[in-house]
Amino acid sequence: MTIDTTKDIRSTETRLKDIQSPADLRVLRIENLETVAEDLRETIIDTVAKTGGHLGPCLGVVELTLALHYVFNTPKDKLIWDVGHQVYAHKLLTGRQEQFSTLRQHKGLSGFPKFKESEYDAFETGHSSTSISAALGMTCAKSLRNDHDKVVAIIGDGSMTAGMAFEALNQAGHLDKDLIVILNDNEMSISENVGAMSSFLSRQLTSKTVRRLRKHISSRLKELDGVGDRFLNVLKKSEENIKSFFTPGMLFEALKFYYIGPISGHELDVLIPTLENIRDNVDGPVLVHVITQKGKGYEPAEKNPGNYHGLGPFDVKTGVPYSSTGPVSYTEVFGKTLCSIASKNHDIIAISAAMPAGTGLCPFSKQFPERFFDVGIAEQHAVTFAAGLAAEGMRPVVAIYSSFFQRALDQIIHDVCIPSLPVTLAIDRAGVVGDDGPTHHGAFDISFLRFIPNITYMAPKDENELQHMLFTATSLPGPAAIRYPRGAGEDVTLADELTSLEIGKGEVLCEGKDILLLPIGNRVYPALRAAKGLEKLGINATVINPRFIKPLDKDLICKWADITGRVLTIEDNARHGGFGSLILELFSEQKLFGIKTQLLGYPDHFIEHGPQKTLWKNSKLDSPSIINTAMELMKV
Amino acid sequence: MTIDTTKDIRSTETRLKDIQSPADLRVLRIENLETVAEDLRETIIDTVAKTGGHLGPCLGVVELTLALHYVFNTPKDKLIWDVGHQVYAHKLLTGRQEQFSTLRQHKGLSGFPKFKESEYDAFETGHSSTSISAALGMTCAKSLRNDHDKVVAIIGDGSMTAGMAFEALNQAGHLDKDLIVILNDNEMSISENVGAMSSFLSRQLTSKTVRRLRKHISSRLKELDGVGDRFLNVLKKSEENIKSFFTPGMLFEALKFYYIGPISGHELDVLIPTLENIRDNVDGPVLVHVITQKGKGYEPAEKNPGNYHGLGPFDVKTGVPYSSTGPVSYTEVFGKTLCSIASKNHDIIAISAAMPAGTGLCPFSKQFPERFFDVGIAEQHAVTFAAGLAAEGMRPVVAIYSSFFQRALDQIIHDVCIPSLPVTLAIDRAGVVGDDGPTHHGAFDISFLRFIPNITYMAPKDENELQHMLFTATSLPGPAAIRYPRGAGEDVTLADELTSLEIGKGEVLCEGKDILLLPIGNRVYPALRAAKGLEKLGINATVINPRFIKPLDKDLICKWADITGRVLTIEDNARHGGFGSLILELFSEQKLFGIKTQLLGYPDHFIEHGPQKTLWKNSKLDSPSIINTAMELMKV
Repeated sequence: MTIDTTKDIRSTETRLKDIQSPADLRVLRIENLETVAEDLRETIIDTVAKTGGHLGPCLGVVELTLALHYVFNTPKDKLIWDVGHQVYAHKLLTGRQEQFSTLRQHKGLSGFPKFKESEYDAFETGHSSTSISAALGMTCAKSLRNDHDKVVAIIGDGSMTAGMAFEALNQAGHLDKDLIVILNDNEMSISENVGAMSSFLSRQLTSKTVRRLRKHISSRLKELDGVGDRFLNVLKKSEENIKSFFTPGMLFEALKFYYIGPISGHELDVLIPTLENIRDNVDGPVLVHVITQKGKGYEPAEKNPGNYHGLGPFDVKTGVPYSSTGPVSYTEVFGKTLCSIASKNHDIIAISAAMPAGTGLCPFSKQFPERFFDVGIAEQHAVTFAAGLAAEGMRPVVAIYSSFFQRALDQIIHDVCIPSLPVTLAIDRAGVVGDDGPTHHGAFDISFLRFIPNITYMAPKDENELQHMLFTATSLPGPAAIRYPRGAGEDVTLADELTSLEIGKGEVLCEGKDILLLPIGNRVYPALRAAKGLEKLGINATVINPRFIKPLDKDLICKWADITGRVLTIEDNARHGGFGSLILELFSEQKLFGIKTQLLGYPDHFIEHGPQKTLWKNSKLDSPSIINTAMELMKV
Repeated sequence: MTIDTTKDIRSTETRLKDIQSPADLRVLRIENLETVAEDLRETIIDTVAKTGGHLGPCLGVVELTLALHYVFNTPKDKLIWDVGHQVYAHKLLTGRQEQFSTLRQHKGLSGFPKFKESEYDAFETGHSSTSISAALGMTCAKSLRNDHDKVVAIIGDGSMTAGMAFEALNQAGHLDKDLIVILNDNEMSISENVGAMSSFLSRQLTSKTVRRLRKHISSRLKELDGVGDRFLNVLKKSEENIKSFFTPGMLFEALKFYYIGPISGHELDVLIPTLENIRDNVDGPVLVHVITQKGKGYEPAEKNPGNYHGLGPFDVKTGVPYSSTGPVSYTEVFGKTLCSIASKNHDIIAISAAMPAGTGLCPFSKQFPERFFDVGIAEQHAVTFAAGLAAEGMRPVVAIYSSFFQRALDQIIHDVCIPSLPVTLAIDRAGVVGDDGPTHHGAFDISFLRFIPNITYMAPKDENELQHMLFTATSLPGPAAIRYPRGAGEDVTLADELTSLEIGKGEVLCEGKDILLLPIGNRVYPALRAAKGLEKLGINATVINPRFIKPLDKDLICKWADITGRVLTIEDNARHGGFGSLILELFSEQKLFGIKTQLLGYPDHFIEHGPQKTLWKNSKLDSPSIINTAMELMKV
């Protein structure tokens, strides 16, 4: 590489601490960025070892982040980080080094881009595959204003499988506006040879000279009076040829993107000139295919990228996570139970949307590979695909996190519930999830599912009940849903035998004539503890575990509401439109007008990140708060 | 064409009435199907002229429907009709000729495929782009059972722009299961020459001989020691070449589909042999590109396909719809008002998801072409694209039908409401829509939007209030939504001047001390009429128009609830999780425990098709029912 004399010749010992903003990067020579990259890696590893977080994705984009801020004039040029969990280097380079130790801590820095944190966070993300849509919107706004700042979306290969990314690419190709999409491909394993060759090629091809040459070849071929055409036509008709000759770029070229790559995402002297070329010479929609390695620079993560995608605190030297030997998680019980059911019921199918590990489906995928389908990040398709399986007599179970099921509402209504097909929705991470914050909390599923006709909707009080509910759901003639929380169960004994629950029947866990506590799902045990506490204060509470959000055990609930005259509902869900709201509807419908009913659930704002226990406490969903609210209600 | 002697030689005068089931078609010679096609067209035109319906799409697939039932062994082989509004010929060929005159009539045949109508309706559809997902699920189920029946999805080119179609193609290509996708392309206008040439080509290419030849060419090229590779590599890098050499098939081939076409969708002697070839000789996922003409065979529809896509009753001879000179529709007022706002506010952007006419945006698209974006059938992208525009200071308004907004729930929560961006959601067709039935009723939007923090959510009592609400929404600093119904307004005078409504303030329309009627949106006028009726019965009702579902005018509502002690809520939405449910939450929150509150809204089942008025009456949402329910409530 030739020395660029327009840049400051600072010490090669430039460190991360010297970088207060991206402007400080841009005066450096490319080779001087290497020490900054080293520091970024060290800071990220040391911090995440303490706070937990998305280590692998963040280590994979250290050079890419440096290159983007080096080449583009941020914050005027906009970087939209798809998913957003890969932004630690971005945060460190944009004035947030001092707060970085508070990463993902309650009241501290978010693990995702946030408008309120920095003007460099150009769009808020959290769920996958939104970046191209947002970036295209921003580009169109800029174009209307004759503003020529650049807009860059950085999106992973996994996120590219989601339909909305395709919808955005499709419109972008059509509109032909300036838009740079960086495809951050960390799945493909390429040999060094091919990688080197490709990166060389792509650098050449973005230069003006080669573009001119290509135009020349193209027009010469046209002069061949259709012969070239026909030759190509025959070739492209053959699947064999397609597989061997056509590159990943073909798909993007079909969508009218200019495709560049693949290039190495860890070589600054490849990345930076390529991006500079694009910035200066390429108009219209362009896609740069960048190959990165998850966990790059941290050996344990490089060796086992799956284990280091997102993780809790760990020992930096060994890479071993600090052991947290708690009770078995709901997710794990779900996965094991499904295997047990599937070993007897050969119609059971398990469907994951790119999260077999997160949803506990890895054992299933190994035990029943032919009955396991990972559809990619494609929640809409996942649900309708399940409906298709169910229409042909199978018993599909779709396991997706609560907040991601928001993507499939229409398919749940339209393809599962209207035709009343026996699909089971396994709603993992229902309720607040903790450190990932508002984009990931499952705070709404009761509100957006409970009004749908034909669905049977359950929430277990503990991991043992989850087993029975899953068994029950997979035997129903119609749609079913089960919501269960992130994390550890209640440490109860798991029954060996699975039993079918009576549909629409709740259970009375303790009886008292003063007040009815009506918790749902993981709020049942806190309510039981609260009932004990209330007893000490002279208040006798009934606690009912409704088990079914739908169909509701109307008789049982109304009976005890009538006896006690006071009802307190408690749910790990928004207070609006949730379970408590359903109880109010029940009383109205049954003309039980005098019942003093109060609802505990999340208030009408998005819940920040923080430990689950803190969030439950802050929203008055823990035992002491239930006692306090019940005592207040007793006074009314 | 050679005569196929295996077929019965019936009279060439075989008519539709002779076809009781597809089995009756399969004994005919291809040329004998022409008279059946004629009868299908005549029956469809005559019936739709009386009932209204999707004329253009149904006339476009007459031959395709005949060919599919002729070639495939339905109902064992499965046909999945995407969207499903093109199934009239399918219904006529599968035993429903006698009921066909009841098409889209209340209690009559649905305009869409329904399990309960026929075993030939293999999957229920209504919303677009679900067919490939469902078909893939069915294919996977069949494959697990070693059942080799065929599964065919028939999908329009418009539906192909939706992300979930891509998600399904992507997985189908990966799984490599047998799956036939018919791309019913009625947008592309091709010259006869090209069409004929292409159909010839495609027939040749599906024959075994030519497939063998192509394999040979392919392996010969591989022997050229990389030279062929490099030649192709250079070529495919050039945009110029891509545009001139690559066909529509490229996209599908990139997704590992075997692409055939384009072929004419109106020539049975092209369609049938092609489909037979595919049935007998092609394995794995295959896409057949069929060119059809919307409205084919009915001159007025051929000339103006846009006007004959879906329409009400019309005169067969002239094609002129029977005039229905009623009050201006909400949709029209929305469109005009948006133009008027946009002429002063240059930041206003209008976004449609493939329905500019249906949502009243045609005038806007003509007046402000640079500020109008039709993103295709891509509701998810539409909303996040709007969020991107808003992040850059624009004021986007996304106009989509209520039931299609179900597709964008996650984007509304995640991309608009969490970052609190000023996007306006114009929710057209809120409430029951009439003849299209359960898949199209907007019966749920209050339930699936009202719990979202940060959104301002309105519903106008009439078309004049809609104007002011739109003006108000587009001036807000954060997200806004307005729900308004299908069809005519209340025939009120439209104010010339747009005014900003006070946020969260309702209005008292009449005062009475006996009961509070609390209607929302289009139920305000029926409630007012009910109040007059009640007065005659000696009951004095207060009627409040809340205007805002969120933020609610808590003080006003609680004040009058307290005065009257009895509240009846009325909404063109599901009773569960809807507006009434919100009022119950308000009373609970305010510890207003004694109020006798009852909710009117749709019960917990899907509402069938039928005229809006019938559906309102059946669900007790019209004035007489409001009076009856109020009288009952007075007795409690």
